[in-house]
Amino acid sequence: MEIKKLQQNMVDRDIIQGWFKELQSAIAGQLEEADGKGKFILDPWERPGGGGGVSAVLTNGDIIEKGGVNFSAVWGQAPAAVLQSMNMEPAPDIEFFATGVSIVIHPVNPMVPIIHMNVRYFEINEGSWWFGGGIDLTPHYVDREDAAYFHQTLRSVCDKHHNTYYAEFKRWADDYFYLKHRKETRGIGGIFFDYLKGNNNFTRESRFSFVQDVGLTFAPLYIHFMKKNHLLPFGEKEKAWQALRRGRYVEFNLVWDRGTRFGLDTDGRTESILMSLPPEARWAYNHQPQEGTREAETLSLLRKNINWSS
Amino acid sequence: MEIKKLQQNMVDRDIIQGWFKELQSAIAGQLEEADGKGKFILDPWERPGGGGGVSAVLTNGDIIEKGGVNFSAVWGQAPAAVLQSMNMEPAPDIEFFATGVSIVIHPVNPMVPIIHMNVRYFEINEGSWWFGGGIDLTPHYVDREDAAYFHQTLRSVCDKHHNTYYAEFKRWADDYFYLKHRKETRGIGGIFFDYLKGNNNFTRESRFSFVQDVGLTFAPLYIHFMKKNHLLPFGEKEKAWQALRRGRYVEFNLVWDRGTRFGLDTDGRTESILMSLPPEARWAYNHQPQEGTREAETLSLLRKNINWSS
Repeated sequence: MEIKKLQQNMVDRDIIQGWFKELQSAIAGQLEEADGKGKFILDPWERPGGGGGVSAVLTNGDIIEKGGVNFSAVWGQAPAAVLQSMNMEPAPDIEFFATGVSIVIHPVNPMVPIIHMNVRYFEINEGSWWFGGGIDLTPHYVDREDAAYFHQTLRSVCDKHHNTYYAEFKRWADDYFYLKHRKETRGIGGIFFDYLKGNNNFTRESRFSFVQDVGLTFAPLYIHFMKKNHLLPFGEKEKAWQALRRGRYVEFNLVWDRGTRFGLDTDGRTESILMSLPPEARWAYNHQPQEGTREAETLSLLRKNINWSS
Repeated sequence: MEIKKLQQNMVDRDIIQGWFKELQSAIAGQLEEADGKGKFILDPWERPGGGGGVSAVLTNGDIIEKGGVNFSAVWGQAPAAVLQSMNMEPAPDIEFFATGVSIVIHPVNPMVPIIHMNVRYFEINEGSWWFGGGIDLTPHYVDREDAAYFHQTLRSVCDKHHNTYYAEFKRWADDYFYLKHRKETRGIGGIFFDYLKGNNNFTRESRFSFVQDVGLTFAPLYIHFMKKNHLLPFGEKEKAWQALRRGRYVEFNLVWDRGTRFGLDTDGRTESILMSLPPEARWAYNHQPQEGTREAETLSLLRKNINWSS
């Protein structure tokens, strides 16, 4: 399935939702093709208060061990917790609308990185709207060339839209994808943005154009790593390290990820929210990789403010 | 190593801390003996602001796959987050003191339950003190006779001290060890209590007497299940189910457990806090056990307000 950018002069929630839905199908199709074996299973669901979504899950592929591509579009009376999260007073007659695509891929081979992508659009009380999203990469083993390729790709996408986007959104990702209790970043970051509203410089169309480009960047970018790394050799040692790094992924998502916590707190659809968790994870007390190993090097690179792209 | 109840007329923080320290050693010794193979490794640590602890971890025993027995005694200026958690205004000159023993055991055999125990004592600004703690059981497969034995044992301990304790603390455990996002209890509950202060009916000595009995109950109670169940047959199917249940344990501890979250939020010692996590866990999208299986029966019993003890 192919998907193209919309060139509409005027976008609204229906157009955005429709495009996100197509984006889900397109990405799922491209990932299936790249994997060669795994198939996405679709699981549609409805939200009692309004709207619903489709979860697409692929397990036990040749390259992808577990991958989820979620689409949702939900609306209705804004739950008190939604308003609270935006520092708004709870009120009975506030309507909200939210739509987005959210992806996490856990590969079989530890030399292929974990990836996460999200694009979303939010409206409250008709007049007020914003976009959010991002892409970040969590290599089990950090490879500086792969990291440079990843960040250069994101930088080009950003630079097409505004010359401050990359620096700003890269910093935001460093700060957001951070395990405070470990003093570790989740991976090598990427871009993260939220509350992209309209103003003198940006129309809804220009913001959506950027968000579409982020969405369209995902599949070719990740498939580049799938193809490049999935035949690299690995053994039990690397699988064991992967399982420990997956443990950190679980820690981030359950302890620090605002979206996950918000969903679990507000009766979101648990299985769709927790699709981001790895198929398997391990914890070992006070594990420290030996100095001079690739594992130790990776840990030393899980820091903020690294200039990956140059 | 043996440990006995203290019959002191007057207890203070030093006496309580000393007894908790001995409790840790006694329990570790009893668990080692029951396991027959695994040995606890001791890992002492210091807290920059005052105090410290000893983590004791056993891995790859014959019966215990991963078990942690933590002792800590920490003090100093009360961090703002500590005061906030007690609805107190942050202030610069408030001193706190906290000591406790905390245990989680993950067994090899899925027919042996996971167990958690905690006893703790807290002081703020000298005059104000309280005890907290509890024991709760998380069977991978719920066995009604085991559950009855577990709750009857806790009931007897409670009944020795006050005739409202068991009912009150059992209800508290049902409410506390609850995965709201799954609408499941973590296991079959047990007892949970907090803020046990002094008043007309209770002295510090009588509260401590109860807490000591809870602590002393732990080892014989769990060793009963170790001995009784560790030779029961199991295969890959049961190990797979255990890994999924361990995933739920991770979800509870990282999302809902107040102690864990508080520790991670306030720069606690991460490795000691996360010692409660299982060695391995799995997640499968929307896993539903087949009707009529022991797995389905277990899920149906993960509810509040079951009268297990009769």
